[in-house]
Amino acid sequence: MDRIMLSHGGGGVEMNELINKMIFEIFNNEILNRADDSAVLGGVKNLAFSTDSFVVTPIFFNGGDIGKIAACGTINDLLMVGAKPKFLSCSLIIEEGLAISDLKSILISLNEVCKSADVKVVCGDTKVVPKGKCDKIFINTAGVGEVVCENVSTKSLKSGAKILLSGDIGRHGGVILSNRENLQSELKSDCKSLKNVVLALLDAGIKPLCMRDATRGGVSAVLNEWAGACGLEILVYDEKIAVSSEVLGICELFGFEPYELANEGTFLLAVMPDDAIKAVEILRQFDKNANEIGEILDSKKSRVVIENAYKSRRFLEPPKGELLPRIC
Amino acid sequence: MDRIMLSHGGGGVEMNELINKMIFEIFNNEILNRADDSAVLGGVKNLAFSTDSFVVTPIFFNGGDIGKIAACGTINDLLMVGAKPKFLSCSLIIEEGLAISDLKSILISLNEVCKSADVKVVCGDTKVVPKGKCDKIFINTAGVGEVVCENVSTKSLKSGAKILLSGDIGRHGGVILSNRENLQSELKSDCKSLKNVVLALLDAGIKPLCMRDATRGGVSAVLNEWAGACGLEILVYDEKIAVSSEVLGICELFGFEPYELANEGTFLLAVMPDDAIKAVEILRQFDKNANEIGEILDSKKSRVVIENAYKSRRFLEPPKGELLPRIC
Repeated sequence: MDRIMLSHGGGGVEMNELINKMIFEIFNNEILNRADDSAVLGGVKNLAFSTDSFVVTPIFFNGGDIGKIAACGTINDLLMVGAKPKFLSCSLIIEEGLAISDLKSILISLNEVCKSADVKVVCGDTKVVPKGKCDKIFINTAGVGEVVCENVSTKSLKSGAKILLSGDIGRHGGVILSNRENLQSELKSDCKSLKNVVLALLDAGIKPLCMRDATRGGVSAVLNEWAGACGLEILVYDEKIAVSSEVLGICELFGFEPYELANEGTFLLAVMPDDAIKAVEILRQFDKNANEIGEILDSKKSRVVIENAYKSRRFLEPPKGELLPRIC
Repeated sequence: MDRIMLSHGGGGVEMNELINKMIFEIFNNEILNRADDSAVLGGVKNLAFSTDSFVVTPIFFNGGDIGKIAACGTINDLLMVGAKPKFLSCSLIIEEGLAISDLKSILISLNEVCKSADVKVVCGDTKVVPKGKCDKIFINTAGVGEVVCENVSTKSLKSGAKILLSGDIGRHGGVILSNRENLQSELKSDCKSLKNVVLALLDAGIKPLCMRDATRGGVSAVLNEWAGACGLEILVYDEKIAVSSEVLGICELFGFEPYELANEGTFLLAVMPDDAIKAVEILRQFDKNANEIGEILDSKKSRVVIENAYKSRRFLEPPKGELLPRIC
């Protein structure tokens, strides 16, 4: 048996085999292995809860696959509110006919991210739909974490805060685009867990006002959301935002803005000026392209302005229309 | 605008509109409205965590829709481990072209179940895939609950325990089958939240050893799983298990076993004999078809035996093969 059959989702013998012989073996931990209807986790003092469904195509891309992105996405969302990720669910919607070997390598890569972030996959679900009713595999993960730094939220954004960016931008979007257009490119997705870098910041006593990973809609979506949430103007500097030459090339070729391309392991954070220098130092231990890229101004105009090297300014508009479907 | 467009999943202006104008308005609560990357929930002493993805077709059926089932499924899974459901996530994978009015009524029905069960939808995600890449809408819910009754688990199953069933069986499977075959039928799905009945049992001091809702694979899948988990023989009595005449008719027509048909609001519980009479009494306040249907024997043969009215016995085999895809 080397392909997924409809009966793998039917609640009978075949589904039990798939779950026991593959899924439980890969995610093996005592909470999951209890195999009850819900995972019982023990107490958590201040809980964070997040979910994302992943429909990325292609399911294998340069620098990752749908399993890696499904783990990183939810782990990173928990980190972004100052929470230490602890538990993950993994729910699969699989198209009949998917190669079992593909499913296995996807789950292994999901599990590797979890292991390295000390996160346990404790519950899940498997559905199989007939051929043509989904596209290969969709994965939902939900995550539970323990808040270790309070009030990391758009509510905490205020004028005077510095905006920091953890690395160069647009690599995930660029890779997906290259893959779909069959471009030869050395570009790798930035898809990764942000656990080490975020915990390093918090351990060093940095108090982020707000953090957000720049996924769909890229840096532009996050900055516009922040400007909307705090009702203030945000100014960023074009030349402080690192973009690789590969991403720039792809953007020129297809008419995209690097600011709107998705990232899957790159985040923005807002900190008070006191914290900015130390925070950039720590960010650079993980990615030399990290930088302070701008600040929140006093002006009560809820918008994002970007200044280029010649001091000319323009609005960075929120992304609109169909950018790039199924990026994550 | 009356249809979902790809841009509703793109992370830009259109997605924000959909989320703010429809989703947040329906699920409206202060935790969700914070709109951070994860919901921060406060402390929970002993946490239960569960997830399910729903791909049921048709998305509207007699007695419910995919939104109702998505809420009930996860709420019930939390209840089945003795947890009080508190928070739900809601993650949508939508096919381009879905009518906005359908999406709205699905979300409203999901939210009605949550409201009546005092559960808050606190986080979510929206993906849109091109036409033909999924089938109308798939919904994942994950849920967090607080364990109020410890050790409700297959680990607690033991010989001598009585097996109780909360209502008549096979109605959800029967409805889906009738809908797909365009049969005229009065049959309604049993799809419902089990919160009131389970909390009534626990409040009355009943100590369930194990509970499980009989979804995919039906009563047969649950009993066989239980027999496997405790390594003991389970004996049930055919005539004690209520099946409506409509379900029986559908089973005869299509060659199904009612024991293998899915339920979406009917559960099995195992209790020690002391608790059995009182538990049945409480179950019957919610469904007059509830009954004690059998017991766990001493015999270390991990299997399920069913006895009919003429005392003739046969094995109730675990479901095998493709029963009925996309039942939930």
